[in-house]
Amino acid sequence: KQVVLLPGDGIGKEVMESAKLVLNTVATEYGHRFAFHEHAIGGDAIDRYGIPLPDDTIKACQQAEAVLLGSVGGKKWDNLPANKRPEKGLLGIRKQLGLFANLRPIKSFPALEHVSPLKQEVISGSDILIIRELTGGLYFGQPSERRENGQAAVDTLYYQRYEIERIIDKAFQSARKRRKHLTSVDKANVLESSRLWREVVEEKRQQYPDVTVDHLLVDAAAMKLVTSPDQFDVMVTENLFGDILSDEASVLTGSLGMLPSASVRSDGVGLYEPVHGSAPDIAGRGMANPIGMILSAAMMLRHSFNMEQEAAEIESAVNDTLNEGYHTADLNREGGKLVGTAEMTEAVIENIT
Amino acid sequence: KQVVLLPGDGIGKEVMESAKLVLNTVATEYGHRFAFHEHAIGGDAIDRYGIPLPDDTIKACQQAEAVLLGSVGGKKWDNLPANKRPEKGLLGIRKQLGLFANLRPIKSFPALEHVSPLKQEVISGSDILIIRELTGGLYFGQPSERRENGQAAVDTLYYQRYEIERIIDKAFQSARKRRKHLTSVDKANVLESSRLWREVVEEKRQQYPDVTVDHLLVDAAAMKLVTSPDQFDVMVTENLFGDILSDEASVLTGSLGMLPSASVRSDGVGLYEPVHGSAPDIAGRGMANPIGMILSAAMMLRHSFNMEQEAAEIESAVNDTLNEGYHTADLNREGGKLVGTAEMTEAVIENIT
Ligand SMILES: CC(C)[C@H](C(=O)O)[C@@H](O)C(=O)O
Ligand SMILES: CC(C)[C@H](C(=O)O)[C@@H](O)C(=O)O
Repeated sequence: KQVVLLPGDGIGKEVMESAKLVLNTVATEYGHRFAFHEHAIGGDAIDRYGIPLPDDTIKACQQAEAVLLGSVGGKKWDNLPANKRPEKGLLGIRKQLGLFANLRPIKSFPALEHVSPLKQEVISGSDILIIRELTGGLYFGQPSERRENGQAAVDTLYYQRYEIERIIDKAFQSARKRRKHLTSVDKANVLESSRLWREVVEEKRQQYPDVTVDHLLVDAAAMKLVTSPDQFDVMVTENLFGDILSDEASVLTGSLGMLPSASVRSDGVGLYEPVHGSAPDIAGRGMANPIGMILSAAMMLRHSFNMEQEAAEIESAVNDTLNEGYHTADLNREGGKLVGTAEMTEAVIENIT
Repeated sequence: KQVVLLPGDGIGKEVMESAKLVLNTVATEYGHRFAFHEHAIGGDAIDRYGIPLPDDTIKACQQAEAVLLGSVGGKKWDNLPANKRPEKGLLGIRKQLGLFANLRPIKSFPALEHVSPLKQEVISGSDILIIRELTGGLYFGQPSERRENGQAAVDTLYYQRYEIERIIDKAFQSARKRRKHLTSVDKANVLESSRLWREVVEEKRQQYPDVTVDHLLVDAAAMKLVTSPDQFDVMVTENLFGDILSDEASVLTGSLGMLPSASVRSDGVGLYEPVHGSAPDIAGRGMANPIGMILSAAMMLRHSFNMEQEAAEIESAVNDTLNEGYHTADLNREGGKLVGTAEMTEAVIENIT
C-alpha cells in the first residue's frame, strides 16, 4: 500500500512518527506492507521550496492510495501574502485530489469526560459524525476579489447540484452504518444555495427510507451542539458551516488532541489528519498528544484500505491505553500516568500486540 | 416618545404586554411619556394581510424613534415560498430602517449559573457583547439565485468598505465603555471580504489606541466561546458569522429566555427584541419568560432615548427578582418561586417602584 506522509509543521512531524510506528506494528501483526513516501507541505514547504504546495508533493499524492497529514501553519508564516500561506497548501491538496467529503467523528471517551467544558450529564454518551462538504461553497467560488478600486470585496457561495448530491449520498450511507439519523444543516431561510441543498436532501431521502432526516438551521445547530450534543448522530453541511460547526463540536469533549479526521472521495482515496493544529508553542518538546494522528491512521485503514478489523484494533488499543490512565499534558488529567508523545505511542502499541 | 410595537407571533404577544407594563411603570416613576403604536409583522401579518411586512408597518417604523419586536415565525408558515415567510418581515425591517449593528449582550447571572450546560468554572464571570453586522454580507448580496437551469445556486458575500468601517467604529466605541478589549472575527485565510474586514480593523485601531485588539478566525472563535467564554469582552463580526456565533453564545448561560438584543443605526433609532423565538409550543399559556423582552426594553431606553438611569433601574430590578428566587419554567430551577409571565412581570415591577 502506497502511503504519502506530509508531516508539515510544528508538532505535525512528531505525531507523524507515532503514526508510522503504529502502522508498522499493524503491518507486522496482519502481514501487510505499507510503503511510506514523505513530502513537504505548508510552512515546511515554504521554507524549503518557497511555496506551500510543491508540484512534487501534488504528484506524489495523486499517485498514492492514501495521504497522512500532520499539521500545517504557524506564526512564522502568518504575514506572507494570502496565496503563499501554509493553509493554501491544505486547500490546494483537497481540491487537487477532489476530496469532497470531510469526516469528523466526535466521541466522548468515558475516561476523559471530566476534561469537557460541558457538564458531564450534557456531554455523556455523545457520538457525532460531522460530514462537511470540502471542495465547494465560499472556499472556491468565483469571483473572490476586490471591487470598486479596492473599496469593496466579494466572495461567492456557489454549489452545483451534483456536488450536493454526492455529499448527501455519503452522509446517508454513513448514517446507515451508524444510528440511522441524519441532520442536514443549512440556512434555507436566507440562502438560495441552502434551498437547493434542502431540495437535494428531500429527493435523496426517498432512496434511504430507513434513515430519519431532520433539517436544522445553522444558527440553531450551533446552539444545539452545546445544549444537547447527544441528540446528534450524523450531521451533514456545506463547507464553511462545516468548518465552524465541526470546530465547535471538536472542543465539546475537551480533548481536541484525540480527534482524527478524514477527507475522502468516492473511490476510497483519502487524506487523513488530526484535528489539532501545529501547536508551535509545544513543538519539538516531545509532549504532543499523538492520539489524533494515530486515530487518523486508523480511519485510513478503514476508508482507504478496507481494513476494518485493523482499524478497530487500533481504536480499542487507544481506549485501553486511556483506561490504563495514560494521558498527555493537554488532557489536564489528575492522577494516572502523565507521558510524552513517545511513551503514549508505545503504550498504544503494547495494546495492539 | 414614539414607540412602535410589533408583537409578532407565538409568545411575542405575551411578552410584549410585559414590556408595556414595565415601560409604563418607568414612565410614571421618571415622568416620561411613551406613545405605543401597535403594528403587524411576520406570520401575524401574513394571516391578516397576506404579506410578512405590510407597508403600513414599514411606514410606522420609519416614523418611530424606536421599535419593540416580540418574535416572528412558527411551523404554521414554514411551507410558504421563501419570500413570503415570516422571517422576510424581520430581514425587511432591518434593511428598511438601515439597522446595521446588532448588539447581543450575554452575561451569566450568578443566580442562574447552575442552568448553564457549561461547568460553572467555565461560564462563571462571562460577560460578552457580540456585535453583528446586520445589513450586508450573504444576507443581501446579489446575485442570490439559481443558475444552469436550476442545477446550481449562487449567493454573494459582498461588503463595501464603509459598511465595515461603521460597524467597526461601533465596536470600538462599545469596547471603550466596557473592558476595552475587542475581538474581531473573520475568515481571512479564505475570504477576500474577510481580508478587507481585517484591513479596516487595522486602520481603525489607530483611532482607539486605548482598546486592545485581537483577530480570531471564525472556526477558532466557535471553539473559544465554549472553552473560555470569560476571555471575551466585545466581539465584532460580519452578518452570517454573527448569526451563528451569537446564537452559539446565547445558550452558554443556559437561559436563552433572559437575553435581549438591539439592532441600531448611528442616529439612535433602533429595534429591540428578545433573542428567544416565538415558541409556538408554549404560546398562549402564560408561561413564557418575559425577561428577554423586558431587558430589550431597557436597551431601548439606553440606546434610543439616552435614559441610562432608567435602563439600569430595570436591569437591577431583574437581578433582584432573580435573586429573590423567581423563575419561569424555562429556567429549570429547583426551589425558589416558579411563576408565569404575568407574575414574573409583576415581581420585576415591584422591584422598580
Ligand atoms: C486552514 C483552513 C483554511 C482550514 C479550513 O478552513 O478549511 C481549517 O480551518 C480546516 O478546517 O481544516
Ligand atoms: C430569522 C433569521 C432570518 C434571522 C437571521 O438569520 O438573521 C435570525 O436567525 C436572527 O438571528 O435574527
